Amino acid sequence: MPKAIDHDQRRRDIIDVTWKLIVKGGLEAATMREIASEAGFANGALKHYFPGKDDIIQGAYQLSMDRIVERLTESTKGLTGIAAFRAIVSATMPLDDESRESARVLLAFWERGLSSTDIRDAYQGHLAGWRADSLGLIAQCREQGLIDTDASDEEIVREMIYMNVGATVLSAIAPGFADRASIEAMIDDFFERLGVPTAADA
Amino acid sequence: MPKAIDHDQRRRDIIDVTWKLIVKGGLEAATMREIASEAGFANGALKHYFPGKDDIIQGAYQLSMDRIVERLTESTKGLTGIAAFRAIVSATMPLDDESRESARVLLAFWERGLSSTDIRDAYQGHLAGWRADSLGLIAQCREQGLIDTDASDEEIVREMIYMNVGATVLSAIAPGFADRASIEAMIDDFFERLGVPTAADA
Repeated sequence: MPKAIDHDQRRRDIIDVTWKLIVKGGLEAATMREIASEAGFANGALKHYFPGKDDIIQGAYQLSMDRIVERLTESTKGLTGIAAFRAIVSATMPLDDESRESARVLLAFWERGLSSTDIRDAYQGHLAGWRADSLGLIAQCREQGLIDTDASDEEIVREMIYMNVGATVLSAIAPGFADRASIEAMIDDFFERLGVPTAADA
Repeated sequence: MPKAIDHDQRRRDIIDVTWKLIVKGGLEAATMREIASEAGFANGALKHYFPGKDDIIQGAYQLSMDRIVERLTESTKGLTGIAAFRAIVSATMPLDDESRESARVLLAFWERGLSSTDIRDAYQGHLAGWRADSLGLIAQCREQGLIDTDASDEEIVREMIYMNVGATVLSAIAPGFADRASIEAMIDDFFERLGVPTAADA
């Protein structure tokens, strides 16, 4: 029997396990011992795949970002104008189980960002890209007369980002203030203020 | 020389030190070893004042909440109507050094809320009180014709809370998206939408 260990697969497994531990109990729950045990490794064997805990955490963070980008790409496929903008606003909101899990992981990473320049930089890079994409879409919508508001493009994007960060945190620690219906109502309000229809055909 | 140790003062000192460590590097930086060293205790001596780390963390969290309530109370002193509401909206925003420090500590506690029911409960209790106070003020403003908007009272409060949570997180990990000017502009927008003047005399 050939000893064909797929090292990339092992690394992905370790990151998956780490992700699940963070979803359950935050970064505190993702100890090296717990990660090793859940991934089926002997204590200390993780070192063959990741030099240290920070590298595993960075990997799980990258997985979060990849999942968000994947959702964004999927949700806007074939859409333009307001429908595309609405998809961008909704895709990263904690509206289903998967995005509620992502929200918990994201909150954990934001806390880690208090001490890690790498995580702050990565998040700011993500924000910058998201902001640029949204500004592009908003400009497109304005040109086509699909947005009619006194608010500047920057103000619209700012509101979108604050709304998203607020929903991420609240869905994780005060879900009564961020259930699905209330987040959807908030998104409707947001688009109403842009002077566009809020119905599903928007 | 009498051995007059002020145990309450010692406890406050320990919590102060913990607060400062969290401001600097998040909960990760607030190890028992570091807290003891910064507070001038021998390793292990903390146990005489707090049974465990969770109790210290809970104490630091209570300090955060107390500081927020203190700011709210001070800032609304002698004010009524829109001025009082504006003071409530602004007081907890990361607009100065003190509230930016509080924002970092709050973010750390929210992460801890992923695994701690106590912290989630305490934050939800805080939100409920803040929400009730704000609803009272909004009703008062409506009666006096100081608010004129189609948005419901609940929608106004929701927007206020999301704005606050968003600013708290962003000021800590993406300060370029939440500098003082941009937060103030956002508060102005918020009050403009309520149909009230945004000038300092509001």
